[in-house]
Amino acid sequence: MTDLYFDFLCPYAWRGVEMAHALRGCGETFRLRHFSLVQGNHPDNNAPDTKGSGEVRWWLTDQPLGAEGGKGSMKYQRPSLSAFLAARAAYRQGEEKSWAFTLALFRLHHEDGRELDETAFQDAAEHAGLDLAGWQKDRQDEAALRRELREDLEASAALGVFGTPTFVLGSGDAAYFKFEKLTRDPHEAQNLWSLFTGTLHSEAQVATVRRPVPRKG
Amino acid sequence: MTDLYFDFLCPYAWRGVEMAHALRGCGETFRLRHFSLVQGNHPDNNAPDTKGSGEVRWWLTDQPLGAEGGKGSMKYQRPSLSAFLAARAAYRQGEEKSWAFTLALFRLHHEDGRELDETAFQDAAEHAGLDLAGWQKDRQDEAALRRELREDLEASAALGVFGTPTFVLGSGDAAYFKFEKLTRDPHEAQNLWSLFTGTLHSEAQVATVRRPVPRKG
Repeated sequence: MTDLYFDFLCPYAWRGVEMAHALRGCGETFRLRHFSLVQGNHPDNNAPDTKGSGEVRWWLTDQPLGAEGGKGSMKYQRPSLSAFLAARAAYRQGEEKSWAFTLALFRLHHEDGRELDETAFQDAAEHAGLDLAGWQKDRQDEAALRRELREDLEASAALGVFGTPTFVLGSGDAAYFKFEKLTRDPHEAQNLWSLFTGTLHSEAQVATVRRPVPRKG
Repeated sequence: MTDLYFDFLCPYAWRGVEMAHALRGCGETFRLRHFSLVQGNHPDNNAPDTKGSGEVRWWLTDQPLGAEGGKGSMKYQRPSLSAFLAARAAYRQGEEKSWAFTLALFRLHHEDGRELDETAFQDAAEHAGLDLAGWQKDRQDEAALRRELREDLEASAALGVFGTPTFVLGSGDAAYFKFEKLTRDPHEAQNLWSLFTGTLHSEAQVATVRRPVPRKG
């Protein structure tokens, strides 16, 4: 079982979730978990006195859902929190529905260029074949959904997650994994997953593989 | 042919050079090239107006060898420049001597805890079996050695190299590669190299694999 931390805001998390979905057809198991980029990058959590310590002062789950007039990260806070809670509610209809909702919402946002707004949540819920009335009812259970989300945010903070997608393997090995080309092909996904897990399991204890960005011009 | 950018200051570059050396016994070929961490991290090259552009304002090769009383990065500048130039002079005795000198100096510094100073350069030259008189004579050709070093620094800046070791494969794929466990075992080195090159050559266009650092306590 691999934990897959993602944020709906992130196009690379989308690629990671698509890869994981292709791998599910080959017997791999993944648990969808949430990490908040807005929280991770929030200035209050990156103050000079705590930077790198993993201490969290600003929690996404402490923020109001309907806050208006925010600037900067606030403009992302609302859709990101709303999207997480909508996905939590979808999960109450089972793991398959949770995957279907997650994939549908990722595709609406990153493939079709839709905003992460209430209309997109509704469309994702329809695409996923959710029991819509049940889903809306579960969304009202906001305090419990926030508590569940908080558990993921706490777990990811303890792990030092800094970006998405981050995969935490059954062995405990964990890494952020950014790749450019989306694949839904099970064979390609398996090759990529073998390289990733092989790298993490290597006795050499690989810490980082990172391409430089060539200078322009 | 793979270009291997390294800085003697960096313990992970040492691991990369040891791995490459083990792979040379299996038919892989590497060209030893220099990247300066002091230059890469220098504030003048990371000013807000140029950060990320790859523009270099402070070149290691423009610095005096014997500058005294430096603070901060200056304290590293001298051994790093001197070490590069000493290695360039060793290269004039051929590729094998160049490898022998490079490995010897890395081991003296990172394995034996020696300073990167003139005594270490001398000991490395001896360990490497250099023609010592010829080496000292070549070191006097400082202007030419600086020009050669500058070529590597310019090439690495164009590639966007930010840390060492960075490997640039024959395919043009390049990445920083940090791993914790040093190996001199050819079989282990080959496994690790296969994972690294496989990851870089993957159709998915992998940009980053990076382990998070768990929160303490």
